[in-house]
Parts: sequence; structure tokens; C-alpha cells
Amino acid sequence: MRILGIDPGYAQTGWGVVESDGQHNRPVSFGVIKTSTSQLDSQRIHFIAKSVGLLAEEHKVDICAMEDIFFTKNVSSAIPVAKVIGACIHQMGLQDIPVRLYSPPTIKSAVTGFGGAEKHQVQEMVRILLGFETIPRPDHAADALAVAICFAVYDFSRIRMKLP
Amino acid sequence: MRILGIDPGYAQTGWGVVESDGQHNRPVSFGVIKTSTSQLDSQRIHFIAKSVGLLAEEHKVDICAMEDIFFTKNVSSAIPVAKVIGACIHQMGLQDIPVRLYSPPTIKSAVTGFGGAEKHQVQEMVRILLGFETIPRPDHAADALAVAICFAVYDFSRIRMKLP
Repeated sequence: MRILGIDPGYAQTGWGVVESDGQHNRPVSFGVIKTSTSQLDSQRIHFIAKSVGLLAEEHKVDICAMEDIFFTKNVSSAIPVAKVIGACIHQMGLQDIPVRLYSPPTIKSAVTGFGGAEKHQVQEMVRILLGFETIPRPDHAADALAVAICFAVYDFSRIRMKLP
Repeated sequence: MRILGIDPGYAQTGWGVVESDGQHNRPVSFGVIKTSTSQLDSQRIHFIAKSVGLLAEEHKVDICAMEDIFFTKNVSSAIPVAKVIGACIHQMGLQDIPVRLYSPPTIKSAVTGFGGAEKHQVQEMVRILLGFETIPRPDHAADALAVAICFAVYDFSRIRMKLP
């Protein structure tokens, strides 16, 4: 099963594709989608969602796992990210790809066993779990791979039985 | 020019189509898109954006005007609405329909001349400006028509000259 992990953001949206059988995870590809502040907000949102759609198609993904907004976050930064999430959810819907959303503590817990883990601890575990020699860069790509692993850890068997 | 006004929401998204020459506004159609709490959040978001896309196509709209999140709002209610906004922005992008976002005070000010107007004052002005005998129902549809009027008042001539 191919999982597309997404770390949504306005300036940079991280993405990572992981192939999983529920126990072993293999990295397929990863990167970031960048937008410029010179673009209109609506153009940035549209561009990110369109790019996520193209990546899902290119890598023939079965499911999309996305980092959700964490409610203690600053509101003014959370609102634009929520718009990006909504746009990506809609794009996945258009492609009939199920979406799962996970909070940052859930992702950290899935990858490191501790919901309050530091960013570099999460990234080091991503490196180990996916067999990289060095931590995947940029940061947002590593975060996206962590979201994909989170799906593999928490929801693989459930989804395997019955895709919604 | 045909303007699609959107009052985004999870349970009910209001919509209203207004035809405008910049001075006179004529109502074309209006209503609400409803989703059920029994659906997954991602399905609701996708359904709303898809429906907005179908309405835009059906009514051959030239522009979409949407109510934006107001930052003083409750965060936990603002995040889901922001996701709906993002999904609709992306759908309009797919159809090459430009989107304009307006804050609630801007919409109130455009319709009533006062940014702190009460909800019923805004709806009564929508009734008068669009020549209805009674206030359009439900509330979210009237609010969506107010957003469409807001575009006609603030941005009509600018957009007319040069669509982005």
C-alpha cells in the first residue's frame, strides 16, 4: 500500500510517499511544494492542492495521511494552514483517495513512542525507520514522511480491511 | 457579470448568485448546501466544494466572493470553516474562476454602510437591494447574497478592467 504523507503549509508543504505492508516501510519519494509570497493567497492554496493531486497520481497512492491543525497553535498562522488542508482534502476526494488526519502529538507518538518528542527526535526516527543514511531534507519533507509512517502504525490494518 | 456569493460553513454553506452591472444587482438564485454530522469531516468538505463547483458551472458565474474567517472568532469553530474555504478556493481555481475573500465587517459595511451592523439589518438591506418582498431564507443564503453584493460594491469596476 502506498501512503502519501502531507505536512501542509503555505510557504512550504512537505510530502513523502511511503510503501508499507503494515510492518515494513519503504520510502518511495519525498520533497516540498513551494509557493511564493508574490502570489495571491487563493493562487497559493490552489497550486498546493493541484500539486498534491499530481503527486498522488504520479506515485499511484492508495491513501493520504495529513498533519492536522493543533489547537494550541497561533490562530493567525493556523487559519491559512487549515485552508491548505481543506483544499488538499477536496483534491483527494476528487481522486477518490481516502484521507486521514493526525494531530502533531499523535504523529510524534507513532514515530517515537512519545507524543511530546522533540522535532529532531522525530526526524531521527524517520531516518531509522525508513533506512536513510541521513535525515531527509528539507524538514517539511521529513515531517511528511513521519505522517505517512503514522498512518502505517495506527491505521494500516483497519484501512486494509475496509477502505471507506 | 455573475457573482457567486458563498457563506462557508460545515453544517450549512450558504450560496447566492447575483447578476450585476456594477450599479444594479439582480438575484438569480440562492440556497444552502447541507452536510450531515454522520459524514466524515473529509467527506463533508469534499461534498461542499464539489457542490459549489456544480453551482458555479450551472449558473455560469464569472467570479466567486466568499466570506473569510474573522480572527476574533472561536478557534475551534474557525478551523473547520477555514478548511471549507480552502476547498472552495481550490475548486474555483480548477474552474478558472477568480475568488475574492471579505471579512464580515467589510461585508456588513458594503451592504449597510456600517461594519458593526446587526445580522437582521444586513439581511433587511439584502432584501431591499435585491428587490425581494421578504428576506431570503435560510439565513446562510441571505448572508451569501450579502457577500455577492459586497463584491459588486467594492470590486466590480476593478475586476471588470482586468481579471487576474
